[in-house]
Order: sequence, then C-alpha cells, then structure tokens
Amino acid sequence: MSQGKSFSHGKRFDLAALKARLEGIRTEDNPALLRQKSRDFYWYSPTLKRQLDGVVADIVASPVGEEEVLRVLAACFELGIPVTPRGAGTGNYGQAMPLAGGLVLDLSRLDRVLEIAPGRAGAQAGALLADIDAACAPSGQELRLHPSTYRTASIGGFIAGGSGGVGSITWGGLRDLGNILSLRIATMEATPRIFTLSGEEVQKVAHAYGTNGILLEVEMPLAPAYTWIEAIVGFTDFLDAAAYAQALGEQDALLKKLVSVIAAPVPQTAFLRHRRFLPDGMHAVLVMLAPMGCAAFESFTARHGGAMLFRSDLLPPQETKGLPPLYELAWNHTTLRALRVEPSITYLQTLYPHPDPLARLARIHSLLGDELPAHLEFVRFDGRITCFGLPLVRYISDERLDAIVALHEECGIPVFNPHRYTLEEGGMKQTDPAQLAFKRQADPQGLLNPGKMIAWENPAFDFATGRTYLFPGLDSRNAGEAG
Amino acid sequence: MSQGKSFSHGKRFDLAALKARLEGIRTEDNPALLRQKSRDFYWYSPTLKRQLDGVVADIVASPVGEEEVLRVLAACFELGIPVTPRGAGTGNYGQAMPLAGGLVLDLSRLDRVLEIAPGRAGAQAGALLADIDAACAPSGQELRLHPSTYRTASIGGFIAGGSGGVGSITWGGLRDLGNILSLRIATMEATPRIFTLSGEEVQKVAHAYGTNGILLEVEMPLAPAYTWIEAIVGFTDFLDAAAYAQALGEQDALLKKLVSVIAAPVPQTAFLRHRRFLPDGMHAVLVMLAPMGCAAFESFTARHGGAMLFRSDLLPPQETKGLPPLYELAWNHTTLRALRVEPSITYLQTLYPHPDPLARLARIHSLLGDELPAHLEFVRFDGRITCFGLPLVRYISDERLDAIVALHEECGIPVFNPHRYTLEEGGMKQTDPAQLAFKRQADPQGLLNPGKMIAWENPAFDFATGRTYLFPGLDSRNAGEAG
Ligand SMILES: Cc1cc2nc3c(=O)[nH]c(=O)nc-3n(C[C@H](O)[C@H](O)[C@H](O)COP(=O)(O)OP(=O)(O)OC[C@H]3O[C@@H](n4cnc5c(N)ncnc54)[C@H](O)[C@@H]3O)c2cc1C
Ligand SMILES: Cc1cc2nc3c(=O)[nH]c(=O)nc-3n(C[C@H](O)[C@H](O)[C@H](O)COP(=O)(O)OP(=O)(O)OC[C@H]3O[C@@H](n4cnc5c(N)ncnc54)[C@H](O)[C@@H]3O)c2cc1C
Repeated sequence: MSQGKSFSHGKRFDLAALKARLEGIRTEDNPALLRQKSRDFYWYSPTLKRQLDGVVADIVASPVGEEEVLRVLAACFELGIPVTPRGAGTGNYGQAMPLAGGLVLDLSRLDRVLEIAPGRAGAQAGALLADIDAACAPSGQELRLHPSTYRTASIGGFIAGGSGGVGSITWGGLRDLGNILSLRIATMEATPRIFTLSGEEVQKVAHAYGTNGILLEVEMPLAPAYTWIEAIVGFTDFLDAAAYAQALGEQDALLKKLVSVIAAPVPQTAFLRHRRFLPDGMHAVLVMLAPMGCAAFESFTARHGGAMLFRSDLLPPQETKGLPPLYELAWNHTTLRALRVEPSITYLQTLYPHPDPLARLARIHSLLGDELPAHLEFVRFDGRITCFGLPLVRYISDERLDAIVALHEECGIPVFNPHRYTLEEGGMKQTDPAQLAFKRQADPQGLLNPGKMIAWENPAFDFATGRTYLFPGLDSRNAGEAG
Repeated sequence: MSQGKSFSHGKRFDLAALKARLEGIRTEDNPALLRQKSRDFYWYSPTLKRQLDGVVADIVASPVGEEEVLRVLAACFELGIPVTPRGAGTGNYGQAMPLAGGLVLDLSRLDRVLEIAPGRAGAQAGALLADIDAACAPSGQELRLHPSTYRTASIGGFIAGGSGGVGSITWGGLRDLGNILSLRIATMEATPRIFTLSGEEVQKVAHAYGTNGILLEVEMPLAPAYTWIEAIVGFTDFLDAAAYAQALGEQDALLKKLVSVIAAPVPQTAFLRHRRFLPDGMHAVLVMLAPMGCAAFESFTARHGGAMLFRSDLLPPQETKGLPPLYELAWNHTTLRALRVEPSITYLQTLYPHPDPLARLARIHSLLGDELPAHLEFVRFDGRITCFGLPLVRYISDERLDAIVALHEECGIPVFNPHRYTLEEGGMKQTDPAQLAFKRQADPQGLLNPGKMIAWENPAFDFATGRTYLFPGLDSRNAGEAG
C-alpha cells in the first residue's frame, strides 16, 4: 500500500500530457512562482526549514470553480501525478508543501461566499476567513473561530490544516462536533466523486492536510458579531496572570473571543506598535470581550489586581490608529513577532491538562527559565477552560529541542510537535483510523499530498521508538537536507 | 437593629392616612384580591404552606411608572408601613409574601421595554420575560436566561427572587458577573433615592428578595435568538442518561439552551401531553438545541446509544400543536406537573459538585429509591458543566424531609432548601454581607419585605444549630400555623 516509493528517486512526471489535459485552466510553471506556491510558514521550525527547504512542485494549477478542480484531479489521476492542495499557504508545518513534487492545487480562486442564514454560512473552500465575515456582517453574524491569520488564510486551509484559535475560548476547537457543519469534497479517482459529509462524518477529512479529499465547499456555524473590545491586562507576577486568565475563562457570563497570556519581556520586545502601553516587567493578558460585559469585566479585573494597560474602546481613534488587531499579537502571531526580533526563536505547542494545569505550567517554566518564554492560549476543551501553550524556545539544536519536548512529557504536558510534517507526529502520535479508512476510498492511489500520513506511507512505522519519520519521497531532489 | 418586633402582635397600620397620600394611584383592599396578591407558589412546600397560609397584606398598590412608585415608598416610609414588592408572584418560597402585612407593591404595570441594542436590552422591572423577548425578536436577539415561568414571570421578580434556568447550560446563572448589566433601584427612605448599579455592584440587590431596594429598571445581556430545536432523548438506564447529559453539556460546539434529565416514571406520569412520545421505562433527557447543531447532535446521541424520542423540527405541525414548550417540562415546571398528578409530591434543590458529581448522584438515589425521583438540570457553573438537582420528594413529614436534607449533606451534596422563606436558609446558609450593608443604606427602617433576611431581623441567629428561623412578625394574625 505504500505509495511513497513511487515518487522517490527524482521521478519526473509527464507535464506536457498534463498541460494538454488542463487546456483552459490557469497553470504556472515559472520557477519563482513554483517555489513561492510550494512553501508555507514551515520556516518557523529550524528542523522543518532544513528538511523542506528544497521542496518544490512541478506545476501549479489555479482552477476557478468546481468543474475545473475535477478536471485537474482526473488528469493527475490518469497520469499518476501527486496533488497537494493549497489555500493561502499560511500553515506552519509544511502541510501544503508538495513533498513529492507534482501539482500544487491552488484553491484561492474558489472564493465565493455561497449562503448566509441564521447561525450558518456556506462558502467555497478558498474563501478567506475575513471575507466570509465581511459577507456575514450585514446579518450581525461572524465565524465562531478563526486562526490569527484571519486576514490571509482560507476557510478550507483552516479546516484541513488548522485547529482553532480566536473564538476557541468560547467555542472550543475545530475538532469539536458542531464547529464544522458540512463539507463538500471531491475524491482523487479516475472520475472524481463528490461527497457531502456532515455530523461526525466531517472528522474524516477535517485536519487531514488534504490527504484524503479536496474540500470544495464548507458550511460553518456562525456566532453573533460584536465590536469586540480589546484589552490588555498587566500583572507583575506571571502565575497571577495565568490564574487571572483561567478564572476569566471560567466566568460563564463574560463573553470572550480571546484570552492569551504572554510572559514579559516578550510583549515589550515583540509587540512593537503596542509598546507604549506595556510597562517593563508586566506580563500581558490579551482579552477580546463582547462589549456588554465591560462593567463586569472591570469589576472582575479589579478583584484580581490586574492593571488595565490598554482598552481599545476607551482610547481616542488617533491612539489606536496603526495598531494591529489584538488577535495578531496572539496564537502563532506571537511567535512570528518574537522571531522577527530574535531570529533564533522557535516554539512548541503544548497542553496543560487538568486537574492541576497551573502547577504543571509553573513546573516546566521553573525548569527551563529564559530558554522557554511562556505563552498561553486559553480555550474551552471538553467542556472546561484549559490552556494550550505556545511557548517560545530559544533554539540551540534539534537534540536540545527534542530534550525539551521530552521534559514536557515527563511533566505530564503533552506536546503537539510543530517540528514535524506528518499528521501523526504533529498530533496525537497515533493514526486516525477514520481518516485512513477514508483515504482508502477517496485516494486509492495515494496521490493526495504524499508523505503527510505515516499510516498510509508506512503502516509498519513504530511510534514507540520515538524516531522521526522520514518520507522516502522527500529525496535529494526535493529536500534541502533530508534526514 | 431588629425591625421584626415592631410588626408583630397584630399591629395595624394607618391605612386611611396611606390612602390619602396615594390619591390617584391604583390601590386595592378587597379581601379576595389581597389574598391573591399576597401569595406565590409557596404551596409547593408543605412546610411553607403550613407556615404561610394565612399571610395577607393590608393593601395592594399598583403604580404606573417610577414617579408613582416613589410616592408609594415615601408614604409607607412616613407611616412605618412595610412594603413587599411583587412582580408576577411565581416565586416558590413565599419570597413575595408580606409576612408582616402592610403594602404589596405590585410592579406589573411597570412593563415597558425601554431599549434594545446589540447584546443588551433595557426594560422596566415589571416587564414579563416573554414580552421582552418578543420586543427583541426583530433584532434576532433574546434574553440569555429565563426561568421556566418565562410566559408569566417578570424580569424584576426573576432578578430579585430567581436564580437561573433555561439558558444556564450556556450562560451560567444570574449570580454570574455579566448576566445582569445594570439595575436602577429606589431606596426606602423619607425621600427615596435612586441608584444605578452596574458591574459587581448589581450583586448587592440581585437575589435579595426585594429586601434592600425596589428595582425600577433593569438592563440585561442578550444572546442570538434561534428557533430552538426541542428534543427528548431516552435511555433505559438512569445513570446512562445522566452521563449523556453531562457529556452533551461538555460539547463546547453544540449550542444548547436546556439539558434536563427526568427519571422514569415521572415523564410518563407527569408529562401528559407528551405522553405518546415517552415509552414506559425510558428516562428522559430534554434538550433545546440551536438548529445549526442538528447533525452533530444526532451523531453525538447515536454514539451514546440514546433513543431520539421526540424532535420538534421533524414532526408535522399537527403533531406538535397543543404541546407545551419543552422548557415547561423542566426546572420547577417538572415539580409542578408531578405534584398535579400526585399531590403528596414536593421537592429539593441540590448541587452535585465536582469532582465526582455522578457518583454522588448515584449514591443518594440508591439510598432513597422511590422516595426521591431524580430530576437533574445541567448548567455551566464556575466554568464547568455541573448539575443541579430538583429531585422530587414523596412527602411524609417535616422531620423526614429534614432527614433527607441531612442525608444529602452527608453525601457531600449541598441543599438549597426550598422549604424556607429566608434568604439565608434557602441559600448558602450564611449572610451576604454586601446585601446586608446595602440594606442599611437603602432601607434604614427595615420596611422592605420584612422577615426574609435573618441577618437584619436577628443578627445573633446561629445557623450552626440547624434550627429553622422563625420570623416573629409572622404572628398568629398572619400565619396559618406559625412555628
Ligand atoms: C502567523 C500565523 C498564525 C497562525 N495562527 C493560527 C491559529 O491561531 N490557529 C490555527 O489553527 N492555525 C494557525 N496558523 C496556521 C495556519 O495559518 C492556519 O491553520 C490557516 O488556517 C491555514 O489556512 P491556509 O488557507 O493558509 O491553508 P494552507 O496552509 O494553504 O493549507 C493548510 C493545509 O490544508 C490543506 N488544504 C488547503 N486547502 C484545502 C482544500 N480546499 N482541500 C483540502 N485540503 C486543503 C493543505 O494541503 C495543507 O495541508 C497560523 C499560522 C501563522 C503563520
Ligand atoms: C412552575 C415554576 C417554575 C419555576 N422555574 C424557575 C426557574 O427555572 N428558575 C428560577 O430561577 N426560578 C423559577 N421559578 C421561581 C420563579 O418563577 C422565578 O424566580 C420568577 O422569575 C419570579 O418572577 P416573578 O415576577 O413571579 O417574581 P415574584 O414572585 O413576584 O417575586 C420574586 C421576589 O422578587 C421580589 N421582587 C419582585 N419584583 C421586584 C422589584 N421590582 N424590585 C425588588 N424586588 C422585587 C419579590 O419581593 C420576591 O421576593 C419557578 C416557579 C414556578 C412556580
């Protein structure tokens, strides 16, 4: 069943035959554009940067509409050419990078918002998140969840490659039943079929990196739109900030869209345009709050001894002009801003589970000190307020990074390793059997985004060894320094 | 400071002087009407029924508008006449009953909805909950929370005498900061003052039974309005039903307004108009769900092995015609329906706290069996899904009822005793110092709803003895069988 081998050793594809079949569909094979459309934000990880730097597609197709997508899929199937779907290419783990070359299927021109109803919106997969919200605004609604790449990322890419973000403090993540209503997908077959999945069925293809179907249209639940108030609350003690954020999360009647904690001095060094609001030494809690909760929020913050450093609604417009939206200081934007000022910075993704999340958090940070500046994102997780960590890491070597991961795991802190390009290693370190079974149906030749699902490429791979999986298709042609 | 004594021994008030001062304001002293406007649903409790059956006011005033309210208060203050505010009189613990006689201040004519904005609505205190929602409907919004007496209760009565209900599974209770935005209140003084309280200040007068201020206007947060789907899910095992309800509560992406569990055979015997949907032996989980979550809800319910017994959205209109709304089978409507078919039924109010709520629940029900048919209401409580109990009790005697309460407490299950008419005994068995302090300012003569705040009437009262407080003002004139 392993398809990996067939793409290795610099195999070339019959691009002339492909182009003939794609007559009338926009394609590109200009090397600069190929390179650009073959990358994402994998370079956040020094490990992935080294492994994937040479990855490049042979051709990019940018269909408009479903019919053209189906033609691309049928042609590639016939010619045995791998297809890697791409939304906006803002993923962090090389999800949208064509490890085995072949075709990048750019879905950005499938960008129509199709329908808006009370509590739900339908859109084509390539629609940008911010554009969907703009279309929903007249009905007083907006998406429940978005990544901090709201202004640049596509809904299809978010579903296939993301997990949650802004809004997760109220709604949980994309993994939660009900945060994706339905998905219309195309299979990778001689004659591609179209399926509509709803209920728990959506989980077969959500967060599968496009390895087992191409999302054509999606239907998402909506929440009421508010002019969210942006606040930054300061604490001189980091654990006080974390405890406040946890308690704020647990205030059931305060409607929030973001609760993030970033330990000093990162806010002061990395949040350049907000710098004047951030006194030295202050750990920052970023909050987006529905405006009706203002007075209650102030009472609550005062009770906890938080210093109100910034309030978007209380500043005159000239004071807030030029500031990025608060969510662009949070989630993986924190990492981005930190590594812009300190290029040796990378990060981890962790979860501090109950019953004693703050104790675990205190432990790991006391062990690692300045090597691991703390960054917490509070979310609803299985019905409780829980915090994910996106701690920054001052990178020394891959070995040290692995040791830091191991240390977390010893402290009972699971790590979702952002320095791995496979579904399994970046996630729960086990295969999702429903995703694998669906790939057997929807992509029998293993042509969709090869190299990302270990269970497909190498069913015998043993996660217990702790060894990193290396996709054989990522050969010397494609890899910067594979292995 | 005890004011109780001044009303005891059948003291009469100068009603003629009062009437002269209330010229132009609607008053009533017809005995039938006095009796009617002096009662609430206290008769749910056999204990309260015996204690309070004879309680009757001397006069009822029904002002229109704030100015008339202030005139009533000033006149009563001058003449030393107690004032007991009343919304719709649907409380269950005699909250609105004038234990010391005097004037019942009927606020039902202060019923205007004042303002509707995104996320918030303002109304006069006497406005009915359903009428507020009707006014909000054109903006696609509705109140976050309402008691199951939605169609009959007033917003002021809910805030002063209620705690939560339908909507609490998402928003928590009225106690939560942010579920009441602001309150405009009048004090009981020679010249009544008006205060507007917001943030945590609202907690000084919320759930104070009107003992420390008269609510004139309220401002409440709104949530998006949906055509909520009503579902009844059946389980043959009660603890399976409870576990399903807990897990459904914890599904962060399924927007719910109600999750209740009622143990067989109560649904079958008490839910008469839904009887045909309720097979014998099935424990019923009542769910109100926002419609976008339907497919996910079905998947989730199937995973748990729940039988979908009823779905309002899948039945033809002729099948649902004549059915009460689902929330009128829940909260204290369950009790009402059960005691209509079995008059010896009364109830308790309990909380099954974490970490092991379902174990505590299993324990108490195994101890009490048929004497305590189970009824659970799931809510968000301090950031977690928790269940309150409103178990039915087959009443034998006050002594047995007290023994059942004690048994709960031994099992680590706090009881909010609905067989007590004081704030403290029906609540946390301790005085709220902020409410007491505010009463000192707002009602220096203790004329507002006398007998309900033990801390005021008898600061030396010792809760530790377990003894029931008896208001001395509730003398033979007023009491059916005081003591
Ligand atoms: C600064 C920064 C901040 C970020 N913050 C967050 C965050 O808060 N939360 C979060 O979850 N992520 C975050 N990310 C990661 C990423 O931006 C998001 O997951 C984003 O939603 C990806 O969308 P995209 O359109 O760029 O997808 P791409 O990067 O283009 O694709 C992502 C994956 O989906 C697949 N895919 C794309 N479109 C389709 C389709 N139509 N059908 C099938 N498969 C498809 C691709 O093959 C790839 O595997 C962040 C990244 C950066 C750089
Ligand atoms: C069948 C049934 C079901 C119920 N379900 C629920 C439920 O789900 N949740 C819940 O919380 N309760 C419930 N209750 C209790 C009660 O119905 C509610 O609390 C309701 O909101 C009370 O409103 P009301 O207008 O009838 O208040 P009233 O009974 O008139 O008054 C309640 C209290 O508030 C005071 N008050 C009233 N108006 C004012 C004012 N303007 N200013 C100051 N004080 C005032 C009164 O003095 C009294 O102490 C239920 C009762 C019944 C009978």
